[in-house]
Amino acid sequence: MSTDEAMTKALLPDSQLPTHWYNIVADLPEPMPPHLHPGTKEPVTLDDLTVIFPPALAEQELSTQRFIDIPDEVRQIYSIWRPTPLIRARRLERELGTSARIYYKYEGVSPIGSHKTNSSVAQAYFNHEAGVRRLTTETGAGQWGSALAFACSAFGMGCEVWQVRASYDSKPYRRMLMETFGATVHSSPSELTQAGRTMREQFPDTTGSLGMAVSEAIEAALTDPENARYSLGSVLNHVVLHQTVIGEETLKQLAMFGEDQADLVFGCAGGGSNVAGLSFPLIRENLAGTTTTKVYAVEPSACPSITQGRYEYDHGDVVGMTPLMKMYTLGTDFVPPPVHAGGLRYHGMSPLLSHVIQLGLAQGLAVEQADAFEAGVLFARAEGLVPAPEASHAVAAALAEARRRTSDADACSIVIGMSGHGQLDLPAYQEYLNGTML
Amino acid sequence: MSTDEAMTKALLPDSQLPTHWYNIVADLPEPMPPHLHPGTKEPVTLDDLTVIFPPALAEQELSTQRFIDIPDEVRQIYSIWRPTPLIRARRLERELGTSARIYYKYEGVSPIGSHKTNSSVAQAYFNHEAGVRRLTTETGAGQWGSALAFACSAFGMGCEVWQVRASYDSKPYRRMLMETFGATVHSSPSELTQAGRTMREQFPDTTGSLGMAVSEAIEAALTDPENARYSLGSVLNHVVLHQTVIGEETLKQLAMFGEDQADLVFGCAGGGSNVAGLSFPLIRENLAGTTTTKVYAVEPSACPSITQGRYEYDHGDVVGMTPLMKMYTLGTDFVPPPVHAGGLRYHGMSPLLSHVIQLGLAQGLAVEQADAFEAGVLFARAEGLVPAPEASHAVAAALAEARRRTSDADACSIVIGMSGHGQLDLPAYQEYLNGTML
Repeated sequence: MSTDEAMTKALLPDSQLPTHWYNIVADLPEPMPPHLHPGTKEPVTLDDLTVIFPPALAEQELSTQRFIDIPDEVRQIYSIWRPTPLIRARRLERELGTSARIYYKYEGVSPIGSHKTNSSVAQAYFNHEAGVRRLTTETGAGQWGSALAFACSAFGMGCEVWQVRASYDSKPYRRMLMETFGATVHSSPSELTQAGRTMREQFPDTTGSLGMAVSEAIEAALTDPENARYSLGSVLNHVVLHQTVIGEETLKQLAMFGEDQADLVFGCAGGGSNVAGLSFPLIRENLAGTTTTKVYAVEPSACPSITQGRYEYDHGDVVGMTPLMKMYTLGTDFVPPPVHAGGLRYHGMSPLLSHVIQLGLAQGLAVEQADAFEAGVLFARAEGLVPAPEASHAVAAALAEARRRTSDADACSIVIGMSGHGQLDLPAYQEYLNGTML
Repeated sequence: MSTDEAMTKALLPDSQLPTHWYNIVADLPEPMPPHLHPGTKEPVTLDDLTVIFPPALAEQELSTQRFIDIPDEVRQIYSIWRPTPLIRARRLERELGTSARIYYKYEGVSPIGSHKTNSSVAQAYFNHEAGVRRLTTETGAGQWGSALAFACSAFGMGCEVWQVRASYDSKPYRRMLMETFGATVHSSPSELTQAGRTMREQFPDTTGSLGMAVSEAIEAALTDPENARYSLGSVLNHVVLHQTVIGEETLKQLAMFGEDQADLVFGCAGGGSNVAGLSFPLIRENLAGTTTTKVYAVEPSACPSITQGRYEYDHGDVVGMTPLMKMYTLGTDFVPPPVHAGGLRYHGMSPLLSHVIQLGLAQGLAVEQADAFEAGVLFARAEGLVPAPEASHAVAAALAEARRRTSDADACSIVIGMSGHGQLDLPAYQEYLNGTML
């Protein structure tokens, strides 16, 4: 293995933008347990799903096809920022005194600063194609909400976002970003839905949860079936599917660096779409016998779905409007402490990623919040990039591994899923630096 | 002229990173009026400048050499984000119904989200080489301050920043960013310097100005000559020099799109380093007779140095510690209204850019703040990118031109200097959208 010692980052031209999304379902040794209808408990059908999603997305959710074409119009919007760079963190390596070669796949160059636009643009496109005029959604820290707000503005659609109250109150910048794109934003739980009003009555002091916000957004879509559909930013199969462009690009870029494979991959896991999008194309190569990449889904100790949750059928929302999905879950009534990594506060985990972990093709890892911010600050001072707090969890896990590798014999390649930058999460860094973090 | 209709953005590999900075002084038909010593009023010498700058930067300030090598260590740090993309704003073109081809050179992919790191890394490097342990500086909106904070952390140096009070109070995120990189930040005018105390006595309600902050930062450096030097983020020749990597890359990238030249260039002008860095290599081609590019330095109507100021010798700071420089100036006692484009609040203008404008090689253009934000929102909704308010001034001027060009006969290429993203300036966008902007 000889790596290019002069290169800092691998860029791909527009012409190398992936032409398809990769559906790992086609290659898994065992089929995934089906989503179940919340009423009948029977496997959901296309018809069930088209109540809240447009036909194309419902088909993707149930598809077993290996590759799914990315429409030209979606690729054209992707091409504003994609392919994203794979960057070697040479200064960080030196700082750590590690023999590991550390790369990060940087999704922060997207319009909103995170990977979420990979799915929002696709979802807005397929909804627009189906004649939908308005999308409703939930958001935590606001990455997904701003991604969908941009995508809706690109297709001339309305966008209504329920944002978890903890983030709505502490992270006003992403709300402003959503509003700059023309979206309407509500603090969740809100008074606008039956689900929200019930929550507020039962838990007047709640700081909200993604599960609550999902219930509100679904209810809002269901009550305007003529115009509105619901859109989810993680967890579901079709969302994970859209994110696989990350991993497809990474494979090509590792080769540009002269790497045969990523030995270790660390991605943060909230709903699971970032680490799944990065790793699934790499796991395909493992399954084909060409690589031996180890994949770690890194979650916060405060919301440890994979490492402390149960693998069982559960709802994706609090009220029970979503299908039952077999996944790692802490239970829909789990309300995490207001950790700053708002994107990692979800009670469940992508059923597809959960299944992949069950099959032993990836594994979970929990990181303490303070360790994540410590790693984030170290990374920022070495590389200039302040990682999103979500991504800092992956950074912390990668750094712990890199620190253990100091000799040439220990050398390996590490890829970090840098899901986004943390410039809108600076108050959390401030609290960490001031020692006032909860 | 045939442009590539499939391409959205032109990327250059690390290997195409410029190897030199371009010094336009070598090619101008008339020499630039020299800076004058504030005491003797004689042209400043190297010795005069080395009181506040390290020898290498002092030499660059007075150099008449055409090309100046970029040190390997600086290029290595540049390579984390450089070359930056040149992106064609196809969706915006469609939205405007223009026949113009609109490109933007996007510096927002840098670690701190603006072009300022091009000079901060160079300045920190040369200071570090000279044994300097601590840099002092001023900042407006905080782009320069965070750029220098990052650069100092990369070289293990201390960093102390005086931030204009108007921005310090209204834009806490960039202060947090500076602190995340390990810098110390003061609101200017402060109680820490004689200059600051005098200002606070004379103008207790002042919202500060860059000129005041410059005085404070210089004083702080001068009182610790063993360890400290002063660093400026714009205006001076050596700063403009470092920014020419922007234009060098742009020339190559326009060719990748199949463009013979940029017909029109719009860059925002506060101290002048962004528009100068973008345009000087293009003006070199004009001077060589190979192109006929028109360059516009776009400033806010509220701080119209070029379009309303006088071209005369003036100080760069309020107290009169800097050399006298011949430049467009509104006078050192000019305190602009607290416009949101904090980076465009400076009373003067780069003497080198001023000279270039005097020679008729570029021209000034003033834009109203409301027009800048209107253009910024339009750009954001079409392209996903929220421009920095500074850059929105350039966007507004470019859009006005593009709107006038609707027929094939009017077609032309326009390049916008997108100096950075506006994700840390969202409160200003919010005020614009709410109609509560001053």
